[in-house]
Amino acid sequence: MRAVDLIITKRDGGELSAEQVGWLVDAYTRGTVGDDQMAAFAMAVFFRGLGGAELAALTQAMMRSGNVMDLSKVPGTKVDKHSTGGVGDKVSICLAPLVAACGVPVPMISGRGLGHTGGTLDKLSAIPGFRVDIDDRRFIELVTEHQLALIGQTSTLAPADKKLYALRDVTGTVESIPLISASIMSKKLAEGIDALVVDVKVGSGAFMRSLDQARALAKTMIAIGERMGKRVRALITSMDDVLGAAVGNANETWEAIEVLKGRGPKDLVELTVELGAEMLVLGRVAESLEDGKTRLRRAIADGRGLERFRRIVVAQGGDPRALDDRSVMADAPHTAEIAATREGFLTAMDVREIGRAAMILGAGRARSSDVIDLGVGFTMMARVGDPLARGQPLALAHYRRPEDLEAARGIFTAAINVGPARAEPPALIRERLGGEP
Amino acid sequence: MRAVDLIITKRDGGELSAEQVGWLVDAYTRGTVGDDQMAAFAMAVFFRGLGGAELAALTQAMMRSGNVMDLSKVPGTKVDKHSTGGVGDKVSICLAPLVAACGVPVPMISGRGLGHTGGTLDKLSAIPGFRVDIDDRRFIELVTEHQLALIGQTSTLAPADKKLYALRDVTGTVESIPLISASIMSKKLAEGIDALVVDVKVGSGAFMRSLDQARALAKTMIAIGERMGKRVRALITSMDDVLGAAVGNANETWEAIEVLKGRGPKDLVELTVELGAEMLVLGRVAESLEDGKTRLRRAIADGRGLERFRRIVVAQGGDPRALDDRSVMADAPHTAEIAATREGFLTAMDVREIGRAAMILGAGRARSSDVIDLGVGFTMMARVGDPLARGQPLALAHYRRPEDLEAARGIFTAAINVGPARAEPPALIRERLGGEP
Repeated sequence: MRAVDLIITKRDGGELSAEQVGWLVDAYTRGTVGDDQMAAFAMAVFFRGLGGAELAALTQAMMRSGNVMDLSKVPGTKVDKHSTGGVGDKVSICLAPLVAACGVPVPMISGRGLGHTGGTLDKLSAIPGFRVDIDDRRFIELVTEHQLALIGQTSTLAPADKKLYALRDVTGTVESIPLISASIMSKKLAEGIDALVVDVKVGSGAFMRSLDQARALAKTMIAIGERMGKRVRALITSMDDVLGAAVGNANETWEAIEVLKGRGPKDLVELTVELGAEMLVLGRVAESLEDGKTRLRRAIADGRGLERFRRIVVAQGGDPRALDDRSVMADAPHTAEIAATREGFLTAMDVREIGRAAMILGAGRARSSDVIDLGVGFTMMARVGDPLARGQPLALAHYRRPEDLEAARGIFTAAINVGPARAEPPALIRERLGGEP
Repeated sequence: MRAVDLIITKRDGGELSAEQVGWLVDAYTRGTVGDDQMAAFAMAVFFRGLGGAELAALTQAMMRSGNVMDLSKVPGTKVDKHSTGGVGDKVSICLAPLVAACGVPVPMISGRGLGHTGGTLDKLSAIPGFRVDIDDRRFIELVTEHQLALIGQTSTLAPADKKLYALRDVTGTVESIPLISASIMSKKLAEGIDALVVDVKVGSGAFMRSLDQARALAKTMIAIGERMGKRVRALITSMDDVLGAAVGNANETWEAIEVLKGRGPKDLVELTVELGAEMLVLGRVAESLEDGKTRLRRAIADGRGLERFRRIVVAQGGDPRALDDRSVMADAPHTAEIAATREGFLTAMDVREIGRAAMILGAGRARSSDVIDLGVGFTMMARVGDPLARGQPLALAHYRRPEDLEAARGIFTAAINVGPARAEPPALIRERLGGEP
């Protein structure tokens, strides 16, 4: 087999066999096919797409390029959740312990933040001592003992995806729905899960700006799951406003803990319960979404979710006092209000820019090598649809350096649209996809 | 500037500035932009094309990546010819001395054959002692003294093109009209020419299979020339039959010499005179194409073309007896007829397959590292349109190894279509493009 022939087939709109796709990924992982040929292939895929069989073969080859966790000895249906990334999305931190507390094992492997989006790993690392670099053996132990693990990607997990992702990043081939889907699914399926709920974000703060794109991504991931014998359901949810009020790291973890204490903001609680209900149904613990929601609300009310989170924090080396005392986690030395510059209604928000403003405060990374300041960020004080008086605070900025505050303030203010007429707040849950569970 | 941003702009159908294109080519030549990014860029160009300004910038940057010959001290308008490649195309060998003999300097840099197509350099190397690896200084001396040089690409000529071409070859991005055009034009313009005639081959033996593709390629090269202040004219000519009768190397050179002696096959003479007339008009020696043709026919009849060829052969170290005695050049040890398997008319020929059959005899290269057998090849004995009796010879194969003959015979025979009704022979000159000279 010659890589150039496979590239030309794809370039000209042909379909590769599963064997050809597998060969290409293996050869690329081993280094006998180089970055030059893989970059050309990725760009051809950007323009031509991938068929169902090609997608499954690509996902499978990337998944099998490393270890696939064997969770077959853990009783129950293992279910994970993946979010395509947004601003203020701390759902995983409260969702995973709640679902585990309801009896569905959650083997969760998360990533770090990049650009305007945050990452669950960074947020969790605000808990002093909490370790996310855990090996495969210990991961399986944690899931067995606690029905829960919250770890980072190990080097043995889908190395082909890691290599391909780094290549796509520099070759302008990130924004390809089949490549995004195969990347996500290869990692998630390597966790050893039986089913997956995907939270596909759509809107100004999401990678998918339009509902059509989000729907295409959701359907592609569902189709890959089907071909590989895994049930996948997707919610398309709004990123036209920040999720919850906290944007940052330690403050987001604290807000997720507030959810577990029954004090979380309405939208964050709603999304946690909606996603969790899907997981409980997929995990065969709930009979219906309504039943699932009832179970989750009960696990919040009686503190079982918080208790499960406390157990996993301790098991992963973290300081459990962080759950009770906000001052245990990092905080910024200064705060300042960002005020509305004119009167009217908050009609729209460029959420990506809010994320970028937080990044400039130090809460995010422009490059993957950047170090995060865990204490800085924003507390949002206005939502799309709210009436605004001139000078009314839009957010509280938690900052370290005055020059960062000034740069962030400019970006933040420019991201807020104020108009004379009230705008309808964006619906949080936009669509639900995937076969009835 | 970041390469990934330029890739994304092109990928999304945007237009790059001349500065951006120049930066990309320079960075690639220096190695600060890698093969991965350039491969992705080339594939994006395959799908999105290049605008006029982008094309000129790409051509110019590749041309300027090495030395640009300074022929300003050579009197006259320097004109070259380029062919996009075919089977039996030995035109350069008779054309260049004829045009030079008529008073237009021809600084010709040619290439080697690859795949089904032959290369002028290989054919010339059949003349014992003839040197084509000549440096820039000597090249300029030859053009000054003989108004002619027939050399190979030096390492200093358009190295960016050389690097990019090798990359395109393995990444499935060869078949892009803007990239093909910029590649050809960057090398030709680096020769120091004032004008160029392009012979764009179309048909079964050409890279461009359709007239539309050939026209697009011709127009693209003309447009590049215009933007760079060089007059370019193009003939689109048939590759639906072999040009002349000889396919190989030494035999093709001999056939070109026959043209110079007034004994060449009709189609080869016609194409030589048509292309030459364009060159004489561009070179301001002929007043019209008719005038140009008359001058060329006279230079054949009075032996000035042959004489000029003899001079350059001697100047480049070749044995001039090769012009008079066929046995001076390599020949194959054996010959065999390839016969028509049934009666009828020769209705069509897959000329690419004829070229491939010659390659299998040893006349061409599957890989650029292969060594050519200069003596082997075919003498065609039937043309499209000819009536055929069963058993009538279609060609004489000149071969070395019986197993090669058998493989070549199978391919050759399969490439010949015989039908009950006479087919019109393909017109040699299909179209003429470029502003009136």
